[in-house]
This record gives sequence, C-alpha cells and structure tokens, in this order.
Amino acid sequence: MNARLEDLPIRDDLRGLVPYGAPQVALPVALNVNENTHPVPQEVADDIMDAVAQALHEVNRYPDREFTELRDGFATYLGHGLTRENIWAGNGSNEVLQHLLQAFGGPGRTAFGFAPTYSMYPLISRGTGAEWVAGTRGHAFTIDPQDAASQVSDAAPDVVFLCAPNNPTGTPMGIDVIEAVYDATDGIVIVDEAYHEFAPREERSALTLLPGRERLVVSRTMSKAFAFAGARVGYLAADPAVIDALRLVRLPYHLSALTQAAATAALRHAPTMLRMVDDIVGQRDRISATLEALGYEPYESWTNFVLFGGVKDARTTWQALYDQGVLIRDVGIPGHLRVTAGTEDETSAFLDALASLDSAS
Amino acid sequence: MNARLEDLPIRDDLRGLVPYGAPQVALPVALNVNENTHPVPQEVADDIMDAVAQALHEVNRYPDREFTELRDGFATYLGHGLTRENIWAGNGSNEVLQHLLQAFGGPGRTAFGFAPTYSMYPLISRGTGAEWVAGTRGHAFTIDPQDAASQVSDAAPDVVFLCAPNNPTGTPMGIDVIEAVYDATDGIVIVDEAYHEFAPREERSALTLLPGRERLVVSRTMSKAFAFAGARVGYLAADPAVIDALRLVRLPYHLSALTQAAATAALRHAPTMLRMVDDIVGQRDRISATLEALGYEPYESWTNFVLFGGVKDARTTWQALYDQGVLIRDVGIPGHLRVTAGTEDETSAFLDALASLDSAS
Repeated sequence: MNARLEDLPIRDDLRGLVPYGAPQVALPVALNVNENTHPVPQEVADDIMDAVAQALHEVNRYPDREFTELRDGFATYLGHGLTRENIWAGNGSNEVLQHLLQAFGGPGRTAFGFAPTYSMYPLISRGTGAEWVAGTRGHAFTIDPQDAASQVSDAAPDVVFLCAPNNPTGTPMGIDVIEAVYDATDGIVIVDEAYHEFAPREERSALTLLPGRERLVVSRTMSKAFAFAGARVGYLAADPAVIDALRLVRLPYHLSALTQAAATAALRHAPTMLRMVDDIVGQRDRISATLEALGYEPYESWTNFVLFGGVKDARTTWQALYDQGVLIRDVGIPGHLRVTAGTEDETSAFLDALASLDSAS
Repeated sequence: MNARLEDLPIRDDLRGLVPYGAPQVALPVALNVNENTHPVPQEVADDIMDAVAQALHEVNRYPDREFTELRDGFATYLGHGLTRENIWAGNGSNEVLQHLLQAFGGPGRTAFGFAPTYSMYPLISRGTGAEWVAGTRGHAFTIDPQDAASQVSDAAPDVVFLCAPNNPTGTPMGIDVIEAVYDATDGIVIVDEAYHEFAPREERSALTLLPGRERLVVSRTMSKAFAFAGARVGYLAADPAVIDALRLVRLPYHLSALTQAAATAALRHAPTMLRMVDDIVGQRDRISATLEALGYEPYESWTNFVLFGGVKDARTTWQALYDQGVLIRDVGIPGHLRVTAGTEDETSAFLDALASLDSAS
C-alpha cells in the first residue's frame, strides 16, 4: 500500500495543502500554543474523576444529545441572565465555530475577519465552502469602530469574526467596535472571547450585548483560563434561535459522556480553576515589561500571551530559543514572535534565554 | 431574545429542516438505537479510570494531535498487518465519515448508497455539499454483486457507502459485492463495518481487501461491540495516503486527551470487552426465532438488532410497546420495526410485550 495523496480522488481545493498545526515537540518549556501551563488543581481533578467514573457506568449508552447539565453549567458560569437555551458547546471552540459556519456559511457565502487574527477562521470558513475576506487593522493592530463598520459594510459578509481580545496579537477590542460592526451587517457576528478571562476584571464582555441582538454570538473556551485544553471543550452563548440552527448541522451525540461529565465537574469549581488567572496575568505583564527593557516592542495584551516586535530575524531567534529548550511561536508576522505566559519558572526560563541572545534590532 | 430560526441568515438548504435524532426518553427497556446494553465490565472500567486520571494530570495541555498511542491500539486490535499509518479516528464514526466526505465529497460531488441504509450517510454527505444518490436493493434487502456494480457504474459517484452488515436491515454483505463495487468506480469506497463483530466469526472482513486498493476504506466503531457509545469513538483503516487526506480536513486536536486515554485503555481489554458479543448474538437469534413464531417476518441479521416485517401498523405497535415501557425503533419502512438485542431480561421484556399485543397481520 504505497499510494500517494495525489493519486486519490481528493477535492481539487485540497490538492497541495498541508495540515494545520504547530510543531508537537517535547521541549522543557513549551510556551507556543497559549495553553494554561498550570495543571488542574488536585481537588478539582478528584471531583472530575468521580464524575467520569459515574459516566463510565453508562458509557455503553449514547450520551445526552442535548448535554443539558453541561449547558446549565455554562449558563451559570456566564451569568448575565443566560439559561441553557442560550448555550451550545462542542469539542473545542473550533468545532463550535465550524457548526456556526456550517449553518451560516458554506458555498456562495463569505466570512470576514480583521487580519492578523486567529488562523483557524479562514481554514474553518473555507472548509465549509465559504470564501474568506480579510479586513485590515490600524496602528498596533487596533480596530477603530467607524473603520470596522465601514470595512464590514463594504464586504457585506455573511459571518464576521471578531476576536476579542485578538489572537495572535493580544489586542483588546472595544465594546463599541462590536456594536458598530453588528449594526453594519445583516450577517452573523461571532465575538470570540477565548481569552476574555485574562482581560481586566472590570471590562465588559460582549455577553452584555446579547439582549435584542439575535445575530450576535459570543464564543468561549475552557482551553485557556480553565486549563482544560486537553479535554476539548468550547462553547457559545446566543439567542435560542441560533442554538436551533446549530442543532441542524451538528453530528448527533457530538459531545461524549466523558467530556460532558468532566466539563460539568470542572465548571462547579470555576473559582478554583480561575485562581491561576491572576498568576498568569502577572507573568504576562512581567514578560511585557522585561521585553521592553530588552529593547523589544511588546504589544498591549489582554490575553495569556504577548506578541512582540523588534525581532531582527524571527526565525533565527525562534531557533535560538528552541535550542535552549524554550518553544515559542512564529506566527508569520515578520519581525515578530509570540510567547505564552507560563508559570513563574517557565516565564523566567524564556526571559533568561532571550536575554542571553543578541539584543533586539 | 425571542427570535425565530427563520429570522436568521441561515443557509437556504437548511431552511425548514428538523434536527436528526431518535427520541431521548427514559424507558425501562431501551432497545431503539442499537447500543450494547451491557455495561463495561468493572475490571475494564478500573483500568480506564487509571488512564483517565493520568491524562487529567496534563489536561491543561493540548492533546496529541496525532493520537499515536490510540492508533497503535486500533492497529493491534484490527490485525491484518495494519500499522498506525493505516488508522484514523474521530468522535464517533459519524465524524470519521464526515472527514471522509470533507476530503472526497463536497460541492459538485456525489455520494451513493444502497437504500435503505444508515440514515446519516445522506445527512453527512449533504452537510458537506455533496449530492446523495440512492441505489436499490433486491429481495430481502440483499445486494447482488453484478447489480451493485452496474448501479455504481451508472451513478459514477465520488464516494460509495457500503454498510456491511447493513443498518437498519441487518443484512450481510458479501465480500464479492465490495470487490465488484470497487472495480466499478474510481471513487472512494467506504465499507462501514460498525456491526462487524456480530457477524459469524469465520466471515471475512473487508480489511482483507485493503492491500492494493488505495481507494478502499473500512470504518468501525467502539459504540456497538465495545459498549462504548457514550465515549464517542469511531475509527477506520485505509491506505496511508487516505489518512494524509483526512489530516487536511480534521480540526486540529479533534480527539480529547480523555477520549484517547479511555479508548486506548478499553482496547487493551478487547477480549473482555467483546465477551458480551456472544450473549448479544444469542439474544438476537432468540428474537428472530420468537418473532417468526409470533407470525412476524424477521430478516437475516449479522448485527446486534433485528428488522422485522409483517407489522400491521408500525406506528401503533411501536406506541403499544412504548406504553409497556419498551422502546424500539420505527425506521420508516412501512410495516417494519427494528429492535436491538438487549440483555436476556430486556429481550424477554420486549418479546413478552410484543406477544401480549394483537398478533401480526
């Protein structure tokens, strides 16, 4: 069996592509994919194990297709008067976004986002047959409400992605941008708040904009603040009619009983799970301050990572850090690199390794 | 927030649809979705729990995107000289089939199956934008090799589904049909062996046909024989080039660390997990014999369920059983119903309830 990919009757638009993915290498300090590098606290892990053991008793049966208890858990966690009728979830927020694109994107439709932004948006959009249109950002990757509305109005997309705060740049997004974009389109507006928990506490979530905006969707993930990347749990809040639309495109029983049990248990411990957020924010700010002292140009970040410019040759610096056992991310912006805020030790290892290199350009 | 689905900018082809799904009701005897009604044995559950606990230690990290250990486990279980390079897996075989359709189906392409067959095939095909073409079966839902090849040759589909044995009819499919269909098409041929473990032991799997057939795919699931429906684990074996194609369309990290750990542990206990298959086959054959004695017309089944005709009014009989606490499936074939082989007690409950009704037409 030695066929080549090009011998198979694969779709034409896939020919020549290579799979998405950050390198998976086991380095001592892995700060490349914006994980929460703090393990789940033992008291929470114990409760999760009890829940999984319970689920295992009935794992011969299909899971609750409506994952009702988990949706209740998300509604409680999010607050803002939301109920399970407003909630959807999937195996990672990528799947949640794919469900949205399957329902509201697809062939003949367009999806829009302000580049640079999360690299999966165009991939997921095109995967459903939709065209991807990239808008632009202003100074330091910020977005101005009027400019944003004007770009969206011109592009007339069916789906708009607003990554708030933005990945890979960390840039905050004002509530006024979301309002302006929503008013400028008849399409679905997805506010991706994957990193919202790392923003200043007093900042408003787009969840506050949901009432009266039936085309607005706020997506979240347990991968970041909840330290649950391995469990693959993303979710969203929206008008119940949006949830009905997603039921039409999801594969039945898409969320396993083990996933439902583990996530529901973790949500019961939200305050404990989120306790590490403050530590991470502290390390993030330490990274920014140190990078600046080293002569690099870190961007304002409301996430658990920092993008920094002023790198003479991103590839060379990335490799030099790699050789010292520190893995960060070259996100493809010339002269820039991105680093995740880790534990204090991991963060120190990164900063020390960087300081040991030739200084910034 | 009281929008209606029709107020949203949903895709035109989804307008007016209702979500797929068997009713989810808690009846004492649930024999409607072809689950394995035997719980996972405690010794296996214990090992799974150890594996999940281990995975939970690192659940803050993204899972192995290549699920290498799990693919090794499937290769070992399947045998036939397969290695991890031949294996793919997803959250249920539905997701595995969706990956196949995303890679080889899509807009402008067609998928083909011999109706009646698994109801998700057309849904998954259309979900990727492909057109669904239904072929026909002969006497008692069987398929003749020459007729099958001729139908496939005429339809010239890009993807062919062969459900072997077939759901919802239980019908065996000869290896000669698969060979004939493969030779009659340049498309991908998916042999869905979800129920293969319930076929007679000496029967050949389509896995034996893989060498030299790079367009052949054999899909399996842990939902049935492995009593693992709640864990959502489907998989397939094919030429490594097919696996490369699926890497292009899967969402990164689509299989959670918990899923990978639980499934890998369960596979280590394959002989124990499969011990209940003989019991189930015994109950299935008892159902067929008793149905015949009651004047119904059961079809030959190599699965864990029995389709039977000779039902005067399927809806009425279904409801009468429901009222007695027994849930079976009306699969939409007039005069027919489908029942899963349960434990001995569950099977008796079904047969007794049916016997208590008016006799067959």
